[in-house]
Amino acid sequence: MRILNRDQIRTALAAVDLMAEIEEAFVAYSEGRSVVPPVGELTFDEPPGEVHIKYGYVRGEDYYVVKIASGFYDNPKLGLPSGDGLMLLFEQRTGRLASILRDQGLLTDVRTAVAGAIAAKYLAPERVERIGVVGTGVQARLQVEYLRPVTACKDLVVWGRSEESLGRYRRDMEASGYRVETTTDAGRVARGANLIVTVTPSRQPLLASADVGAGVHVTPVGSDTVGKQELEAAILGRADLVVVDSRSQCTERGETAHALAAGLVEASALRELGEVIRGGRARTSEDQLTVADLTGVAVQDVRIASAVHRAAASRQEAEID
Amino acid sequence: MRILNRDQIRTALAAVDLMAEIEEAFVAYSEGRSVVPPVGELTFDEPPGEVHIKYGYVRGEDYYVVKIASGFYDNPKLGLPSGDGLMLLFEQRTGRLASILRDQGLLTDVRTAVAGAIAAKYLAPERVERIGVVGTGVQARLQVEYLRPVTACKDLVVWGRSEESLGRYRRDMEASGYRVETTTDAGRVARGANLIVTVTPSRQPLLASADVGAGVHVTPVGSDTVGKQELEAAILGRADLVVVDSRSQCTERGETAHALAAGLVEASALRELGEVIRGGRARTSEDQLTVADLTGVAVQDVRIASAVHRAAASRQEAEID
Repeated sequence: MRILNRDQIRTALAAVDLMAEIEEAFVAYSEGRSVVPPVGELTFDEPPGEVHIKYGYVRGEDYYVVKIASGFYDNPKLGLPSGDGLMLLFEQRTGRLASILRDQGLLTDVRTAVAGAIAAKYLAPERVERIGVVGTGVQARLQVEYLRPVTACKDLVVWGRSEESLGRYRRDMEASGYRVETTTDAGRVARGANLIVTVTPSRQPLLASADVGAGVHVTPVGSDTVGKQELEAAILGRADLVVVDSRSQCTERGETAHALAAGLVEASALRELGEVIRGGRARTSEDQLTVADLTGVAVQDVRIASAVHRAAASRQEAEID
Repeated sequence: MRILNRDQIRTALAAVDLMAEIEEAFVAYSEGRSVVPPVGELTFDEPPGEVHIKYGYVRGEDYYVVKIASGFYDNPKLGLPSGDGLMLLFEQRTGRLASILRDQGLLTDVRTAVAGAIAAKYLAPERVERIGVVGTGVQARLQVEYLRPVTACKDLVVWGRSEESLGRYRRDMEASGYRVETTTDAGRVARGANLIVTVTPSRQPLLASADVGAGVHVTPVGSDTVGKQELEAAILGRADLVVVDSRSQCTERGETAHALAAGLVEASALRELGEVIRGGRARTSEDQLTVADLTGVAVQDVRIASAVHRAAASRQEAEID
């Protein structure tokens, strides 16, 4: 049994073909080869906190995974991050504990960013003129970073609520070699980019349909729970193709649920990302408007945790026992 | 953060007042101060296995606990135990991981045995003539071992299906200072003991009402899931007092569910163990027949894990990080 901390996990990740692993996760999910029970939850009132327990596996693979992620919103007052998490990896044939990955949420962040890159690989315009980012947090950075295998584009236009967070984002991304325009007008992002990711916890649409032209791909990532919304539903209504990571999740929450409820999208027209991956690149013309609604699926956790475990084993990270 | 193996946990347990901890757990549970969501489950077909994920906390205490327990029934073919388990302890105020207890099921076994001792403390006859044990497994040993603070009785009558397992049980318990009569006739246990514990996975009643006299206390421990049954339901029907560890669990499974379904017991007559503990010793005459139906409650896990964590901290077991 191995116990890996965040730094060891980061090192192991460098040896993982993340695009391939997460693509296979989505394909397994869409082919019905995964077992993903409902998420367990614990909530706390004083101080406020919530814990989510996600678990599942892909049939015929080596491991099953239990992920425990917490958010305690008063932690910053104590000088602690509000979010924390770890993943436990067990052998499917015996139940034996194989690894404890104390990733503190890193693997969730990375698998989410890789899913964005996969969506772009199959759906973004051939020639990405500018990458639009709505949001300035950790995921707003990672989405761009993990797009590198998909596009050489280094031009960003980024929306945020405050000049301070925009300034920090610009500084960080310029240090990584990007040219960054910042704005507090989300319409500028919508009009100025042809590959857009939205990564906010907004409960009000930030992108208006009137601002989003043809020949654009949009990946909304932030709206992972009921009530959240980043895109005006008409964008999905106009889209030539709406792809979802999980048909069952996206019909209940996320952008797609809003568009279905408004009668702007037919459930039968939705395609799952795993189906798209199997079929190959899904954009058939540079003029299409496409959307990939990502809510996060537990098989992504299973695949990334298994890959990190194998990478650490091949590096001969120390075993306990 | 500490990670403790089974031996370190065993050492820490020696410093814990287990009766007091588990009594407080039951009281907290019966007073509605605990949060215990439904159990999560993963099942596997090939090879067959099941994983249960239990989690919960007592409001106002320091920790919440996530327990992951597995049973993979082909493991013995590989020279591995079929059951495994670990508990994770997190701070209620921050979500930070405090301990990983790699107990491999030890803490579940111990908290179950301690619950049996608590039932005996409040319900068994003053003078225990002989302890009857139905079953010869790990729990059949631990139930007797943990009765030591409650009774000085060293006479056992033990039922098992095979002479081989009975012989092993006798050898082990004689080595611990007990006088042991073995039998393959469960009626002999029922007629020959006035404190009886049943610890089998039987799906057929093993103890007949005609064999169980007055002045006896019975603690059935084995029937923790739907379909299992160790006692003829008429025993509960005749009992002067039927105590359950959890009213909600025992009305759905275990001995009490059978007796309720047969109309032999009124739901309103059931008392929870936590209520009994608050009220003090519940047996009011040596002639009473009493039953304590134990199905296992997650607050027991919360309390024993928290106590082990504190004991290990005070022993200054090494921290990771």
